[in-house]
This record gives sequence, C-alpha cells and structure tokens, in this order.
Amino acid sequence: MRILYHLPLSPFARKVRVVLAEKRLPFELRVEKVWERRPEYLEMNPACTVPTLVEDNGRVVPDSGVICEYLDEAYPDLALMGRNVDERIEVRRLVTWFDQKFAQEVLRNLYWEKTIKQALGLGAPEGAALRAGAANLKHHLLYIGWLAEHRKWLAGSQLSMADFCAAAFLSSLDFMGDVDWGTCPAAKDWYARMKCRPAFRAVLNDRVGGVTPPPHYGDLDF
Amino acid sequence: MRILYHLPLSPFARKVRVVLAEKRLPFELRVEKVWERRPEYLEMNPACTVPTLVEDNGRVVPDSGVICEYLDEAYPDLALMGRNVDERIEVRRLVTWFDQKFAQEVLRNLYWEKTIKQALGLGAPEGAALRAGAANLKHHLLYIGWLAEHRKWLAGSQLSMADFCAAAFLSSLDFMGDVDWGTCPAAKDWYARMKCRPAFRAVLNDRVGGVTPPPHYGDLDF
Repeated sequence: MRILYHLPLSPFARKVRVVLAEKRLPFELRVEKVWERRPEYLEMNPACTVPTLVEDNGRVVPDSGVICEYLDEAYPDLALMGRNVDERIEVRRLVTWFDQKFAQEVLRNLYWEKTIKQALGLGAPEGAALRAGAANLKHHLLYIGWLAEHRKWLAGSQLSMADFCAAAFLSSLDFMGDVDWGTCPAAKDWYARMKCRPAFRAVLNDRVGGVTPPPHYGDLDF
Repeated sequence: MRILYHLPLSPFARKVRVVLAEKRLPFELRVEKVWERRPEYLEMNPACTVPTLVEDNGRVVPDSGVICEYLDEAYPDLALMGRNVDERIEVRRLVTWFDQKFAQEVLRNLYWEKTIKQALGLGAPEGAALRAGAANLKHHLLYIGWLAEHRKWLAGSQLSMADFCAAAFLSSLDFMGDVDWGTCPAAKDWYARMKCRPAFRAVLNDRVGGVTPPPHYGDLDF
C-alpha cells in the first residue's frame, strides 16, 4: 500500500492528502515526528520535512511540491497542474504563492508557532508572530476572495492544484480556529465549495490529540 | 526581444539568466527595483519578486521556479529538469532544497541582509543574521560537495537545473565575498566546472555599482 508520512495538522501534508484523494489513489498515513530526525527518514527526505510519499514499488518522493508535480505526471487522468503551457504558468504561480509567500507570512507565524515550535521544545508561541500571522492572513483571504470572484476557480476556469493547496493550508488554520471567515465572504464561498468535495472528507474528520477544532470546522454549510 | 526583469545580484534572477544562456535563448535584461512596487510590474508579478520573464509574444512568466519549469517545457531540446520520472523527482527535490532551504538559511541572512534590506530602508545588516548565514552556508557547501563527490552532477549523471540553481545562488554570494571555498574542495571543484560553462560568462562579467567582487570571482581557475 502507498504510504504518506505526515503530521496531522501539517498544511503541506494535507495538500497531498486531498490531492491523492481527489485522484482516487488509496494511501495509508504514517505519523513522522520530524523533530526526532529518524535516520531512516532522513535518508528518504534529507530536508526532514513532511510529507514524504512512498509508492508500492518503493519509489520515494519527498516534499509536497515535488509530490504534486509527480502525481500529475504519473496519474494524469485528472490533470491538476493545468492543461496547457499558459494554464500551467498560472497554476504554478499560485502554488508558489501559497507554498512560499503564504507559508512564510502566515503558516510560519501561526501553524509553526503553535505546533512545531512546541514540539521542538522552543517554548510558547510569540505574541508578535501570532499578530503578524493573523494580519497577513486577512490580506491573503482577500486575495483568494478576489481570485474566486473573478474566476471560476483560483487559477482560472479549471479546478487545479492552486485550489487544493490554498484550501488544504486554510483547513489547518481553520482547525486551530485561526480563520475569521466573516472578513471575506467570497473566500468563504470558495472554501465551502472545496469543503464539499469528497476528497476533503478525511481531513475534515481529523481529530488531533489535545486540539479541539471550532464547531464550524467540519460543517459543510458553515 | 525576450525581456528578463531582474536585479544584478538576485540569486533567483541569476538562476534564470544562466538557464536561458545554457538553452541559447537570447534575452534583454531590465532592472526592476521591486521595492518601488511599480503598478505595471505588480500586474505581471503580484508577488513583486524578480525575475519575471516576458516572451516576444507577450507571454508573462513570473517567479524563477515557474520560469524554469516553463523553459524546460517550451524549449525541451536541452532537458534540464530530468529525462524521466525518477530523474525529475531528484532534480525537483534539489531545486526545492536550494529555492527554499538554502534561500531561508543562507540567502535570507546574507544576500537579503546586505542588499534588499538596505534598499528597503530597513537599516544595516544584523550581525546575528550574518553569522547564522555564514554558519549555514558551510553546511550547505558540505552537502553540495558530498553530492558532487558521489555523482557526476548534483542530481545524478546528467547536468540539471539543480546545478544551475546552486551555482547561480553561490555566484551571488561569491560576488559579495561570502564563500570560503577552502572549507570544501569538492564543492569548489564542482563550482569551477560550472563557472567554465559559456552560460556563466555574463554573470561572471557582472559589475554592480558600489560592490567590488573579490579577485577570484570571475577567475575560472580560482
């Protein structure tokens, strides 16, 4: 069975989980406590991040971005990276926007401060980081809302990796109660459409030890 | 004529410059002072980073990672992203390693502190950041050296985007005198091989106002 090494709240692992589910590729989850720096895991993924995918044939694919490119090439029936050169440019631009800009401006300040920092024994979340993350998230929600109002899906007329990436990242933050959906109805409407997809069912049913998601988290009509 | 918006010392713009040159695609450079946030530029590249590529036909491709994927798809004669699924996994793993890990651990502390921070009017470089960047660079050089000793090129038997990415990033740091090549002869040997390629000639001849590179910077036999 295909294995995905992950952490339950990792936004990057969630991205791959929903993409695997959307492509109807069955997989088994294994928790990898990356802070333990397990030598066997480092050999598969020297950057020691989650997720890492291991295929039935033993092929190892580390990093969510590398995995998503790989999945679209290996299982092209449902193309999520765009159908032609121009669509691929826009999908990759937005995926990079979320993987790098959103990750640094929002995830680093909220997800990392609240979960990984503690696991690494680096102390309590810093107030300044949490405030910066919350402020940055508002701008990102407005951008997502603007895209969703001007296009059918974030990257254009086709559902793409950009939608799964953004929605997976937001699902992690929403689980922690960090998303104020009232500030951007257009982003909320788009996220409600993503939440309804069967591919999201598993992450919406996630329950993580020690963290209780807000009541609207799994609600498809929130 | 194809246009590349860049900054002379930007590691990400250098990556695209050497890849364009390796693929023998002529282009014109235009300096984009991203900190001025020019509205016409923001429209092409909402993340307001360099580089952005504009093709003869008006096609806009923002972000060095997106550009490199695009160039390999649009001009496949010289494939730099790998020739099959497994090669592409390893090339993309290393490109992600440099674009994200090396960028955060090294470029953010050295290149950003010494150049962009000043341009943004955020003051002098911080000593702690410079020390962290220098310490991290040593580890990255050792990893590059280890790869170069165990493989013909960084990602395997073929010259790839991973080599151009790492060499372009190091060329920016080398220009600023930040690379102590004596600490890792294997990395130095590999970099000497990259420097000798005609594609590197233009960046090695770069002279940037106010910054004098060390004497070995453009020397192919350093």
